[in-house]
Amino acid sequence: MDRRSFLKTLAAALAVGNARVVAVEFDPFPPAPRLGKPLSPVGERSRFEAHVQRYISPNLPSRHTGAAFAPISELDGIIHPNGLHFERDHAGVPEIDPKKWRLVIHGLVERPLIFDLETLMRMPTESRIYFIECAGNGQNGYREPPEPTLTATRSRGLVSGAEWTGVPLRILLEEAGLKPEARWVLAEGADASAWVRSIPIDKALADVLVAFRQNGEALRPENGYPVRLVVPGWEGSIQVKWLRRLLVADQPAMSRGETSEYTDVRPDGTVDAFTWVMEPQSIITRPSGGQRIAPGFHEIRGLAWSGFGKIRAVEVSTDGGKTWQEARLSEPVLDRALTRFTLPWRWEGQETVILSRAVDEAGNVQPTREEFFRRWARNNRYHYNGIQAWRIRADGRVENGDPPLAGGPVPPLRAGGCGGEVLDG
Amino acid sequence: MDRRSFLKTLAAALAVGNARVVAVEFDPFPPAPRLGKPLSPVGERSRFEAHVQRYISPNLPSRHTGAAFAPISELDGIIHPNGLHFERDHAGVPEIDPKKWRLVIHGLVERPLIFDLETLMRMPTESRIYFIECAGNGQNGYREPPEPTLTATRSRGLVSGAEWTGVPLRILLEEAGLKPEARWVLAEGADASAWVRSIPIDKALADVLVAFRQNGEALRPENGYPVRLVVPGWEGSIQVKWLRRLLVADQPAMSRGETSEYTDVRPDGTVDAFTWVMEPQSIITRPSGGQRIAPGFHEIRGLAWSGFGKIRAVEVSTDGGKTWQEARLSEPVLDRALTRFTLPWRWEGQETVILSRAVDEAGNVQPTREEFFRRWARNNRYHYNGIQAWRIRADGRVENGDPPLAGGPVPPLRAGGCGGEVLDG
Repeated sequence: MDRRSFLKTLAAALAVGNARVVAVEFDPFPPAPRLGKPLSPVGERSRFEAHVQRYISPNLPSRHTGAAFAPISELDGIIHPNGLHFERDHAGVPEIDPKKWRLVIHGLVERPLIFDLETLMRMPTESRIYFIECAGNGQNGYREPPEPTLTATRSRGLVSGAEWTGVPLRILLEEAGLKPEARWVLAEGADASAWVRSIPIDKALADVLVAFRQNGEALRPENGYPVRLVVPGWEGSIQVKWLRRLLVADQPAMSRGETSEYTDVRPDGTVDAFTWVMEPQSIITRPSGGQRIAPGFHEIRGLAWSGFGKIRAVEVSTDGGKTWQEARLSEPVLDRALTRFTLPWRWEGQETVILSRAVDEAGNVQPTREEFFRRWARNNRYHYNGIQAWRIRADGRVENGDPPLAGGPVPPLRAGGCGGEVLDG
Repeated sequence: MDRRSFLKTLAAALAVGNARVVAVEFDPFPPAPRLGKPLSPVGERSRFEAHVQRYISPNLPSRHTGAAFAPISELDGIIHPNGLHFERDHAGVPEIDPKKWRLVIHGLVERPLIFDLETLMRMPTESRIYFIECAGNGQNGYREPPEPTLTATRSRGLVSGAEWTGVPLRILLEEAGLKPEARWVLAEGADASAWVRSIPIDKALADVLVAFRQNGEALRPENGYPVRLVVPGWEGSIQVKWLRRLLVADQPAMSRGETSEYTDVRPDGTVDAFTWVMEPQSIITRPSGGQRIAPGFHEIRGLAWSGFGKIRAVEVSTDGGKTWQEARLSEPVLDRALTRFTLPWRWEGQETVILSRAVDEAGNVQPTREEFFRRWARNNRYHYNGIQAWRIRADGRVENGDPPLAGGPVPPLRAGGCGGEVLDG
């Protein structure tokens, strides 16, 4: 090898499909590095990655109720690291001593039961990769007029993917023995909000996990340490964190979290309660709002998911919706898990708008903004899953590309809410 | 509800299959908790989990070359959190500024290429869940006589599971244009050991990733930040971390890492080099060495994996190998990924030995200790995959249950090596 030949600037042109990217200056033979850092009992992130954080709105009236968004603009794959899994609290994160933790199961059961953590962990378990999504995900995405500086993280970052391990709730309920009149399981958290949500008995017996592991290790405190419910495909707020009590009943609790919050407003002003299942979503994470790209080859990457099952397809448009191409789905494509889609793309420097649209195995199609607001009122706060558009400016800057809606502004939200962000005062 | 009824001790007997576990004392109505901790930009583990750490032998002569074991005794599922992924370094962990990082591809190519990180990240990617295992995994497990206090972590913790995202090496090599005489890709790391391993061209073109994401986020420093190779199913040391150079050649490097280390000794004293593929493994992680169990129902849980593909089956014996039952494999069962197996079990308090045995889809069967040492010399240091037995004492303590070998002690290791542990001085 002629080492000198590497010391000059290379400007080799790469051909990725029909694309070209330009190589850069490099001295391939730097001085020998010094001995590095020693082995560590628990690894930490590189200091060069410290900027990759969950997003917390600076306008929140309190950081004890609100949300921290997973930085999906800067993540790849379908698993989120535990420290960056999105967070939604109603009264802060309680600190629970696992030795003192107990779970009681009572109500319409033959044998009321109490578990400590060691007893729970001896029970039969399942490990599954699922998404969890806050019903308020998208609250920043449906603002009208669209906010130009929106990022993928702020538009749709109240979702995360992880592997959860826990005991099937079915097994615990069978241990307790359901009485014939049992219809609902009321789950209560140990945080100061005394969070309660009601789960219909069929779902409780189907696939709910009483989970104590998140990506292999103990749950993180903000995700329910030591034990939470995982309710596959359903809205996050029913996946009760810091679980302490399961009351089996013949009717739902009609709690705050299923009446004043987490209900959906129809255009005629009536309200749907118990809208549990998360509709199909997708979002392009790269390139996305706030990023800046150079002409040439890019892989468009994004996330799709649906509470109804597997993602069947994701279609991507790079010309503002005139034409659509089917993206590649990265294996494994799992039931009610995040799915990564990719599409090779060459950007020539023209201004354009890119969009993605998810279709799930049940045949549900992610709607446009206009379609969403034909189904739901303009002041509805939950379950927004409208297509997110990104505008690529001629200088490579990426902005919110959502089209304005007919009918004028959406009323601003007055409280932090699940979306976690207050833009107006 | 009669609240008083909960204030007494409950001793409800649970019936899991044929098992019974005893419930515990509990006051289900404690005082209302206080407001918890606020939202956090990056989550941390609970302080009650601080003891869950990677294991580093206290006897290492240096912590700059050696290994930190993933605490598999205390993890569930098939994904390991990034901070607990096992670590193996040859000259410490270099700190690399991602803005200064470059990757050069040269040698028998039409167009030598240099990539910076931003250019690499624009390329086509794949995300895959794989195990990575150090070829020295098991070095503590094959000691003779068997060490009574061995744990699952120390026996087989030089393996971890994660989702890796990167650019297929094939795409980069096609960009550079392989010359007809290209047969090997020599990969070099940027650490002070100048680590070099040689990958045959067929494997390089098949499924190797140039990875920059680990469970969604940037690689951890000890796992190669900013870029490493992921070579599915092959020994860890060829999955070069802190990747800086790919030299395409017509012959292998015959580097230190493929001559004096990571070669395997046959019983006749001859040595096999280039033994890349990791053979089928399994280990019961619960109950396992160092744990203590109470009589009653237990779910036996463990990990299995194979470099030859998917795990087809795991058989478990709870009677010292007299009879075997097929364990349940937790979905998804993925190609060259960790697979979680479970088996319900009732322990009556008798002394016994439990074992697990993996079979992969290629038909390879995990060998006994005796079978392993018929194939390899007693002083061979790598690729040990003998069945690990755990002895349950009558008092519930769990110890190493491996049978002594005919033929006397194995020579002690004199250096840290990949197994990372020196028991003898």
